[in-house]
Amino acid sequence: MSFPQEVKVGVLGATGTVGQRFIVLLSGHPFFRIHALGASSRSAGQAYGKVTKWKQAVPVPKGVRDMIVQECKSNAFKECAIVFSGLDAEVAGDIELEFRAAELAVFSNAKNHRRDPVVPLIVPLVNPSHLSIIPHQRSLQSPALSKGFIVTNANCSTTGLVVPLAALEQAFGPLELVVVTTLQAISGAGYPGVPSLDIMDNIVPHIGGEEEKMEWETSKILGGLTDDGQGFDLHEKSPLRVSATCTRVPVIEGHTEAVSVRFTQRPPPSVGQAREALEKYISEAQQLQCPSAPEQAIYVHDEPDRPQPRLDRDFQKGAGVNVGRLRECKVLDLKFVVLVNNVNLGAATSSIMNAEIAVAKKVIDV
Amino acid sequence: MSFPQEVKVGVLGATGTVGQRFIVLLSGHPFFRIHALGASSRSAGQAYGKVTKWKQAVPVPKGVRDMIVQECKSNAFKECAIVFSGLDAEVAGDIELEFRAAELAVFSNAKNHRRDPVVPLIVPLVNPSHLSIIPHQRSLQSPALSKGFIVTNANCSTTGLVVPLAALEQAFGPLELVVVTTLQAISGAGYPGVPSLDIMDNIVPHIGGEEEKMEWETSKILGGLTDDGQGFDLHEKSPLRVSATCTRVPVIEGHTEAVSVRFTQRPPPSVGQAREALEKYISEAQQLQCPSAPEQAIYVHDEPDRPQPRLDRDFQKGAGVNVGRLRECKVLDLKFVVLVNNVNLGAATSSIMNAEIAVAKKVIDV
Amino acid sequence: MSFPQEVKVGVLGATGTVGQRFIVLLSGHPFFRIHALGASSRSAGQAYGKVTKWKQAVPVPKGVRDMIVQECKSNAFKECAIVFSGLDAEVAGDIELEFRAAELAVFSNAKNHRRDPVVPLIVPLVNPSHLSIIPHQRSLQSPALSKGFIVTNANCSTTGLVVPLAALEQAFGPLELVVVTTLQAISGAGYPGVPSLDIMDNIVPHIGGEEEKMEWETSKILGGLTDDGQGFDLHEKSPLRVSATCTRVPVIEGHTEAVSVRFTQRPPPSVGQAREALEKYISEAQQLQCPSAPEQAIYVHDEPDRPQPRLDRDFQKGAGVNVGRLRECKVLDLKFVVLVNNVNLGAATSSIMNAEIAVAKKVIDV
Amino acid sequence: MSFPQEVKVGVLGATGTVGQRFIVLLSGHPFFRIHALGASSRSAGQAYGKVTKWKQAVPVPKGVRDMIVQECKSNAFKECAIVFSGLDAEVAGDIELEFRAAELAVFSNAKNHRRDPVVPLIVPLVNPSHLSIIPHQRSLQSPALSKGFIVTNANCSTTGLVVPLAALEQAFGPLELVVVTTLQAISGAGYPGVPSLDIMDNIVPHIGGEEEKMEWETSKILGGLTDDGQGFDLHEKSPLRVSATCTRVPVIEGHTEAVSVRFTQRPPPSVGQAREALEKYISEAQQLQCPSAPEQAIYVHDEPDRPQPRLDRDFQKGAGVNVGRLRECKVLDLKFVVLVNNVNLGAATSSIMNAEIAVAKKVIDV
Repeated sequence: MSFPQEVKVGVLGATGTVGQRFIVLLSGHPFFRIHALGASSRSAGQAYGKVTKWKQAVPVPKGVRDMIVQECKSNAFKECAIVFSGLDAEVAGDIELEFRAAELAVFSNAKNHRRDPVVPLIVPLVNPSHLSIIPHQRSLQSPALSKGFIVTNANCSTTGLVVPLAALEQAFGPLELVVVTTLQAISGAGYPGVPSLDIMDNIVPHIGGEEEKMEWETSKILGGLTDDGQGFDLHEKSPLRVSATCTRVPVIEGHTEAVSVRFTQRPPPSVGQAREALEKYISEAQQLQCPSAPEQAIYVHDEPDRPQPRLDRDFQKGAGVNVGRLRECKVLDLKFVVLVNNVNLGAATSSIMNAEIAVAKKVIDV
Repeated sequence: MSFPQEVKVGVLGATGTVGQRFIVLLSGHPFFRIHALGASSRSAGQAYGKVTKWKQAVPVPKGVRDMIVQECKSNAFKECAIVFSGLDAEVAGDIELEFRAAELAVFSNAKNHRRDPVVPLIVPLVNPSHLSIIPHQRSLQSPALSKGFIVTNANCSTTGLVVPLAALEQAFGPLELVVVTTLQAISGAGYPGVPSLDIMDNIVPHIGGEEEKMEWETSKILGGLTDDGQGFDLHEKSPLRVSATCTRVPVIEGHTEAVSVRFTQRPPPSVGQAREALEKYISEAQQLQCPSAPEQAIYVHDEPDRPQPRLDRDFQKGAGVNVGRLRECKVLDLKFVVLVNNVNLGAATSSIMNAEIAVAKKVIDV
Repeated sequence: MSFPQEVKVGVLGATGTVGQRFIVLLSGHPFFRIHALGASSRSAGQAYGKVTKWKQAVPVPKGVRDMIVQECKSNAFKECAIVFSGLDAEVAGDIELEFRAAELAVFSNAKNHRRDPVVPLIVPLVNPSHLSIIPHQRSLQSPALSKGFIVTNANCSTTGLVVPLAALEQAFGPLELVVVTTLQAISGAGYPGVPSLDIMDNIVPHIGGEEEKMEWETSKILGGLTDDGQGFDLHEKSPLRVSATCTRVPVIEGHTEAVSVRFTQRPPPSVGQAREALEKYISEAQQLQCPSAPEQAIYVHDEPDRPQPRLDRDFQKGAGVNVGRLRECKVLDLKFVVLVNNVNLGAATSSIMNAEIAVAKKVIDV
Repeated sequence: MSFPQEVKVGVLGATGTVGQRFIVLLSGHPFFRIHALGASSRSAGQAYGKVTKWKQAVPVPKGVRDMIVQECKSNAFKECAIVFSGLDAEVAGDIELEFRAAELAVFSNAKNHRRDPVVPLIVPLVNPSHLSIIPHQRSLQSPALSKGFIVTNANCSTTGLVVPLAALEQAFGPLELVVVTTLQAISGAGYPGVPSLDIMDNIVPHIGGEEEKMEWETSKILGGLTDDGQGFDLHEKSPLRVSATCTRVPVIEGHTEAVSVRFTQRPPPSVGQAREALEKYISEAQQLQCPSAPEQAIYVHDEPDRPQPRLDRDFQKGAGVNVGRLRECKVLDLKFVVLVNNVNLGAATSSIMNAEIAVAKKVIDV
């Protein structure tokens, strides 16, 4: 696989939590080069280093510190082959539409267009094949587009869940039931996000809209395209029922998820068979040798007390999924614990890997 | 209901986490009077205030500070009508047997005798009726006993789970399936317990033996006695399958549990019916007007983000159970979140309430 | 000392962090009765239980839950003999002036009027004598007032500091130098206050304006009145230099302060003498038998690792000051550690105790 | 400066917190190669990956995972040119003596030999010149040694303190007074170390022996050698008085210190002069181009709320010191806040950098 030498990219929502992570990751990227930064009009016209409340554990990259922040209008991003959106949901919807209409390729971490019937919702370690709907997406715009499109990535919790589910479905056929309880890190709520008085020495057993997202997005991602290739089948050929409980916990980064699954196949696979399937799973992102792809898509821990967010979230730069405690479930078939880095694979890394895949597959012409 | 004026009690394991909570609760008790304190031989012979590493948010009660700690041998506790055991599992087994053999009534928080086929495992808000096995328990000892017995209370996580399950079974008949994920506080592990390096900014997705305890204890508690009254039926007439995942979270006190249940009754009760059954549930401990019983056995929260450990764990002195987020489950029938104070109802308060019930029912002659 | 049967009081800023603590404390008060609640126009006209984001560990008191919230205008508070202000500094200044002009007695926790040369800044365990300036304060208004006045209490960190300093000055004469480093709890910043992403696993070594407040307020509180009784001497007869470093730490409640002091008296008192002076210190609030006063103004800990916020902040309902680690300082004379409950004595309890003192001293006619 | 291609090193206490950090750092080192690992007899004879309770955020380095752990006896380390000791103080004293007697070069993080009058106590960014006492140290052994010696590094808190103090003394002459309050991370106490019940939502205002270490070590490090070069002058030509208060805070890594200083020079330097001196300070470790030395010895933050442990502890791989909030002190002359990574520069990195310096200066013949 050969990638281009240099691809100019833009970042929308550059001063936010996800935007900052985009900047950290892109600054060390082998061929994506940050060319433009977009933020609110409050910040526009000023140097990035001045207006960002930087919260990363590495300093603001030197090449970015003095870059002038732009308003989030497509004009200023015309030279970008790719635009990454870390925008808040309040504004992402319209801005991303405007960028698409201006023939820009938008890879968005925002939730706004995830349910759009022609926008792919892609977890790069699972369903890059959904990129094939993009010509149809372009054709529906008026005027029809030749280059612009929107690709979204999934909610951070969904992302962690669907990778092992995809590996199990690939090996053993469709799943029927999934019960999942999440323990989600505070960074998932952005900045300022969760007040410390709400979460220190505490659990908040509710995250608005999160359970619905997990229950719905999972079927879109794990399902295929409709037979005409112009829509998503939402796993409807073998319906999948997902029940999610989402909680916020006093952890800075890394979502932990307790998952139980039931297969349609009877008898279900054994623990040993499932373990092997998880470990051997290789995603298209890896096959395409995307630079942001992890070496191991799913790392299976055999120690009884892993994965743990603080110890495992930075493994493989947070680009893979950690699974542990794989064992039988007395109610469904199998159960296990998932850990996903919500800010990396759960957000910025997925957008970037999706863009790498799109470049590799020539969906974007660079 | 009339209770006696004063009942002398002893506390074993008095310097440990549970023992300290026993002392705080008993110091304000209307008729239990602390008469003897037992701890390891390291502490024996010295004043309690000197040897305890006191970790409670109230000072050592004055009447206890200068009490001389005893070794855990029945001799020193002969005048106690009741002995509460907060002993560690490493030593609780034999010591409690020795106390029973010496005709003492032992209410234990330790796990050692919970699976004994003639020792009742009692959650005071659920199954005080199991006290009726005590005559049989006494009769099996050699020589047969006239006063001594052992009653255990459940694991802290089980305790939080079975109270709402009992309320639902009382109203709607047997449950068939339960999936539960716990988020357990560090105080559940005693002192020194969980190293801070293991739990700050972290989740540990495993607590040794805890899942097995929850899966097994639930059936013993929710089941009845066998027809001859000399054993426990373990819910076998209508088998109950429980699948538990137990995690440790950075919370000081209060276990949170995400629970999904399936009823045998079809169709299952609605959310509204279940809510009413939970709220109206009145336990025998309340009917007997036990002083440690909560006013409301199960407090149902309607706010979407409650219960929360920091805000709700001390409600009703931690003697009741909090339930929230009652809603339909897409996989089983209903799901909800439970909060139980693991150190109060989950440990010391249960032992004390069990003893109050035993006094009220004249199982103990005082 | 005899107090009246019932005194009607109002609470401004009733939905905020300090306002909520006022409500918890006043609901159990022997003679203050909550009569009116004031908040922003967003909340006005609705039941308190509906509009408050209640964050206390006890439920909203029943008598208050259905009380209709008022706008913060004096009209609605005319029947209140006392008005407690937990208002934010953005609005407190003008509102409190309007209330005073309407002949209301305002006890404010806000910083706005603390530097006013005729408004007393009173820490109830230190300088209630400053109430004597109130007639002069009234006389300066136009028209002159007969009942209205403003009394402020100090910043929470200052409050913890000045109590032991006052005890030392009372026993050994003026202090000359104070170096203090604070470790302040997140609740000091109100709600939503400190974002969790800023403080989990972290220290923020700066709190805007806090060091200046500590350095300045200390002299106003520890100083006397000018000779004509119409102003404050700001400790100028024997100048006191205070150097403060203020940090925010991941603690929910309770400010810890490391303090070093130098006396003007040479040789300085010994550790033993200082310990005795701290322990024996009795404030006017205690002499007047104010119901909110602690039994012991300064509790001196001899254990080497106390006071600790989690273990000691609720001692005496957070109304006293904890001192520990009293020892020689190699640079100044003595050093020690202070713990003050920032939400109780550091805020609401001080305002309430100041009002009790004003009632006892007949500054308020009830 | 040219360094050798490869130097074999050993690590004592390899399974502990500091030992693990040694292994992480040495695994990526340009010329030190881990050749032998020592731990207690419990672990000896087994593969490192089996016996270590690994708590680092990166996996056990591959080359080390299968290495067989040795007992801490010099025999097994004979081929090592350098031995790093991360041993606990209970055993470090004798073991290090045995290694020195066996002609091994020991760089120790343990406190045992720090006060030895011929063992240098070296903070690599401050006083590598003290290495010149090693010939004298060797000559005092019987028999006199030709290669063996012990070099210690300082307590983690002292290390953070003395770097800016050295920079100030280099520019403005001797300091006279230092008042410091530390907020120390839990990792400073090793593993299991601080129980979570002791530190969550809490401060422990005492760390046994720590204040004495800071007060004493500072003078040894900042002082020079005696005129005959056979001892340390302990800053006695211009006595330095240090007063330390040490507290433990709920932070995982990174010690924060609030420091006030007084110079002997009158008038003292201005804030601007001090800022420049700190920023321009270049240590010998940097001049020698040691690979573990930071680019900037002291990074001066101008933002009002920095340094912060979570954001700044990993800057420059934790090998430099962060200083912020430089300003005038109303009691002494200047004050500022220091952040040091207690596990890197405060422990393992210092030992490694000391060894690099010793290699560069040919104190060790490799």
